[in-house]
Amino acid sequence: MKASSYLIPTTKDDPQDAVVASHKLMLRAGLVRKSAAGLYSYLPLGLRILKKIESIVREEMDDAGALEFQLPILTPAEIWKESGRWDKMGKEMFRLRDRHDVENCLGPTHEESFCTLVKPMVRSYKDLPINVYQIHTKFRDEIRPRFGVIRSREFTMKDAYSFHLDEESLDKTYQKMRLTYRRIFARLGLSTIPVQADSGNMGGSASEEFMVVSPIGEETLTICGSCGYSGNIEKTPVIAASILPALAGDIEEIIETPGKKTIQEVASFLSVPESTTLKAVAMSYDGKYVLIFLTGDRELNENKLKNFLGANELRPMGQTELTKFELTAGFIGPGFKENNELLVLVDALVNWDAGYVAGANEFDKHKKGVKLSKYFLAAKVQSIDLAQAREGDLCPNCSSPLQAEKGIEVGHIFKLGQKYSKAFDVSVLNDKGKATLTTMGCYGIGVNRCMATVIEQCNDEKGIFWPISIAPFEICLVSIAKSVEDNARIAEVYEGLKEAKYDILWDDRDLGPGFKFKDSELIGFPIRLTMGKGFLEKKEITILNRKTMEEKTIVYNALSDLTQEIDKIRTELKQSISESLVALN
Amino acid sequence: MKASSYLIPTTKDDPQDAVVASHKLMLRAGLVRKSAAGLYSYLPLGLRILKKIESIVREEMDDAGALEFQLPILTPAEIWKESGRWDKMGKEMFRLRDRHDVENCLGPTHEESFCTLVKPMVRSYKDLPINVYQIHTKFRDEIRPRFGVIRSREFTMKDAYSFHLDEESLDKTYQKMRLTYRRIFARLGLSTIPVQADSGNMGGSASEEFMVVSPIGEETLTICGSCGYSGNIEKTPVIAASILPALAGDIEEIIETPGKKTIQEVASFLSVPESTTLKAVAMSYDGKYVLIFLTGDRELNENKLKNFLGANELRPMGQTELTKFELTAGFIGPGFKENNELLVLVDALVNWDAGYVAGANEFDKHKKGVKLSKYFLAAKVQSIDLAQAREGDLCPNCSSPLQAEKGIEVGHIFKLGQKYSKAFDVSVLNDKGKATLTTMGCYGIGVNRCMATVIEQCNDEKGIFWPISIAPFEICLVSIAKSVEDNARIAEVYEGLKEAKYDILWDDRDLGPGFKFKDSELIGFPIRLTMGKGFLEKKEITILNRKTMEEKTIVYNALSDLTQEIDKIRTELKQSISESLVALN
Repeated sequence: MKASSYLIPTTKDDPQDAVVASHKLMLRAGLVRKSAAGLYSYLPLGLRILKKIESIVREEMDDAGALEFQLPILTPAEIWKESGRWDKMGKEMFRLRDRHDVENCLGPTHEESFCTLVKPMVRSYKDLPINVYQIHTKFRDEIRPRFGVIRSREFTMKDAYSFHLDEESLDKTYQKMRLTYRRIFARLGLSTIPVQADSGNMGGSASEEFMVVSPIGEETLTICGSCGYSGNIEKTPVIAASILPALAGDIEEIIETPGKKTIQEVASFLSVPESTTLKAVAMSYDGKYVLIFLTGDRELNENKLKNFLGANELRPMGQTELTKFELTAGFIGPGFKENNELLVLVDALVNWDAGYVAGANEFDKHKKGVKLSKYFLAAKVQSIDLAQAREGDLCPNCSSPLQAEKGIEVGHIFKLGQKYSKAFDVSVLNDKGKATLTTMGCYGIGVNRCMATVIEQCNDEKGIFWPISIAPFEICLVSIAKSVEDNARIAEVYEGLKEAKYDILWDDRDLGPGFKFKDSELIGFPIRLTMGKGFLEKKEITILNRKTMEEKTIVYNALSDLTQEIDKIRTELKQSISESLVALN
Repeated sequence: MKASSYLIPTTKDDPQDAVVASHKLMLRAGLVRKSAAGLYSYLPLGLRILKKIESIVREEMDDAGALEFQLPILTPAEIWKESGRWDKMGKEMFRLRDRHDVENCLGPTHEESFCTLVKPMVRSYKDLPINVYQIHTKFRDEIRPRFGVIRSREFTMKDAYSFHLDEESLDKTYQKMRLTYRRIFARLGLSTIPVQADSGNMGGSASEEFMVVSPIGEETLTICGSCGYSGNIEKTPVIAASILPALAGDIEEIIETPGKKTIQEVASFLSVPESTTLKAVAMSYDGKYVLIFLTGDRELNENKLKNFLGANELRPMGQTELTKFELTAGFIGPGFKENNELLVLVDALVNWDAGYVAGANEFDKHKKGVKLSKYFLAAKVQSIDLAQAREGDLCPNCSSPLQAEKGIEVGHIFKLGQKYSKAFDVSVLNDKGKATLTTMGCYGIGVNRCMATVIEQCNDEKGIFWPISIAPFEICLVSIAKSVEDNARIAEVYEGLKEAKYDILWDDRDLGPGFKFKDSELIGFPIRLTMGKGFLEKKEITILNRKTMEEKTIVYNALSDLTQEIDKIRTELKQSISESLVALN
């Protein structure tokens, strides 16, 4: 491709509303343009990258025996009501009525659609397992789209759904998908960590996220340097390194704490560690109520609470609700007026026999020496893991201290169980002729997000350096020639490489060499050839490895002189990818 | 690909709600399934075909120098309001509000989006011409989706938009696109006719539709067998073979015509040809009013009227409006009470000096011998071409009689002019440094509709016969073997063909030969290999050309024995496509 008949609208300055590297570089390198909040247009260079990523995903899915479909984006409300998600999906789902006033949504995920589609096609256990997927546009009405295509409202997803006769077959496909995902990310040049994840409102028994460690990640993961355990912090069970005995005294007494409502204020006012105070969190869920006690140094993990309660919606109690239960905001502690409508839970880290500083259930008053065992019966009030894990907690596998890292989720695999197959009665006859409900898995990859995440991992002060597997073009030829004759001599080399099927962009634009060099480094073509005065006078061609910025000059006598050098760098660049693939096997 | 690990959900019986061949066969062959009104899921076999069509479209567009983009489906109302189409698009446009109450639509076409996107990227005349396109999902809320994917509500379009400094450059790209379209359809195995078309509400100066002649077509085209002229009937100017003098008498007199309101009733009651009566059509447009007179045997072409009036919306007057203008429905004729708010137009076929039978503007009364020249001043009442053309009218090029055919539109090219570039001020500096508004073209192809239309042209009583260029697989190998050893011998041949990059599906399913043969003929793989008893005992392989149903049996000693025969049929099958491509050059 000749740049003069292509579109390379690079910009020099950082765009105003972009804060992360990938967002800035995608705009500057002319890969995308913003069309509205959370909506991006892909320009020719960007689309080439996206299509290369899609091809890798498709190849690996096909190799794993999955079958590609394409389902409508518009999905009728009817099937979402059948699965019970029409209400649950909330405002993130784009909804619309058609001209006949039928309700539809723009599919954010396709469990419902695939169940409906696959149901009449699988009749016998012989038709199973089946793994079906599509690579298509999805929609989510994000409240705050950000980071460019990392969190956008319209994006390309690879979503796959597998159907099985039993858990064993599901596990086999789940493990195959796990390996497929690792292969896909390796081929994209992405280094990912699979982490134990919460299955959230998907239902199901197991789930792993594929995380790219990055300071801009919106998820937090816990990693064990010793045994290799990794988990989403939402899911990580808390094993505290040491449970300190509560130090705030053993005898219960009331203390005046005027205006001291937060744990921080109270602990600092009394000069005690936050871990010796008791934090009370009053929440409402699905029209019901719960009060949770944790040690003052810990945060509630709402996910753990939701899973324990089987709750859909969770929010802090409002003032009216607090008043109804006679709870004094900021000063709640054991000894509050119990109520059958108010469930009480205690985090597992709380020591029932130690004395804590806790609210005295009176305005501007706390108590010290508060022991839970004096107030609650262990048979009635459950003590469970409800706290958010943090760096320094112990690995649930090997008890070494955990590290915490920020991460971007690029893929997610789930064992869904029978939630959806039950809702749509996707069943088959087993080998004894008995109708048997299928068990499902589901597997997603955010295609555009992969693109941005690669940039987060592969950029320097000059711009992007693309992994060769997904570079918009593998080679950029920068020519510097003034006359038509000189240009013709360069064209000959370009045509030779094109003929030999090299993936090459010839920057033949009528621009200065500095401008062209900067563009090629910003966009990040893995290999750059320079053909200027040196070539025209001495047949010299300079070859640059964009990633290492190492340059080499060769003398060109025949095309093979050049292709040999190019192939050498290509092999080098592909090496690390092949190595990570080998490591997976 | 082995059929045993693929999905081939064929059905024997015609689906109930399918009336046309392509719709029936796409469902029966397991290419698509309906998910809701006008919404279809593509199954693996169907998606392979769709992707092959997309590849051909992409290759030809790229070869023509167009640049591929991908724009969001969600487009903000704002830009539609800027172009004035937010209201004009009516109910066919799916509209929705996001969580921030911002109005959006699901793009049915992307002039607005591409103008906004391209505007900041073209600054100088040197950046032009540019031709940008995408292959993406489009939405239209059809009032009556039908014929399967031929008229659906969600579909894949290739839409391209070109920007030019002047009309000459536009014409060059327009002609290139015209050739590109002919190449694309030829490569798909589709025989199309480019017809002069109306540019409708797109604005612009010229437009051609690419039509596939088919009895199920929703468009009518006029074709001249003599000079090759073809036009959409909406656009064809009317040149009547002979204008008969009105025969209904020369002296005006009133006739009682009790209960005779329609032309048919009146002509038959008076025993005169319909062409000797005058038809009055009272219409409302954009809040204004028009009354049109045509000869009784002609229909009003609303498109011509709309274009003449520059009207957006057109509908028959209601009773209240008729009353307001003192018009007597069924009995309107010259001599009605004239009104400044009521524009009068006369079709060019009406002879102003002949006597017609016309309404007498009184209930149950007509007049005969009505001459227009007695009632209207030619200087005040315009006589223009407003009638719908019909078979037998004369070719506007060469005056031979026209034929009329039904056709399916698979592509459409437009010279848009400056309607959109003006709305979005897409201008560049010309070679004198002066800001100059660009001129646009736009070019669309319905990808799924192409698929269905090919089936309309390529089917017989057994099923589909795909053009080899877009067949789901080029070759289907039907094996009949009972033992593992026999199967292994067949597998060896299959593996050999796969290794040699033949596009082959091996039907290794545990089903009877009759079933497999029927499936392969229904789905329509161009070449079928049969390997059964003949192969196992005598090394015989039977090769079938699905289109001609000609069979040949060869003895297999080496893979080349087989590939030679396959290549022969492939060459034959590709011949007609190459021939039509050559004919275009």
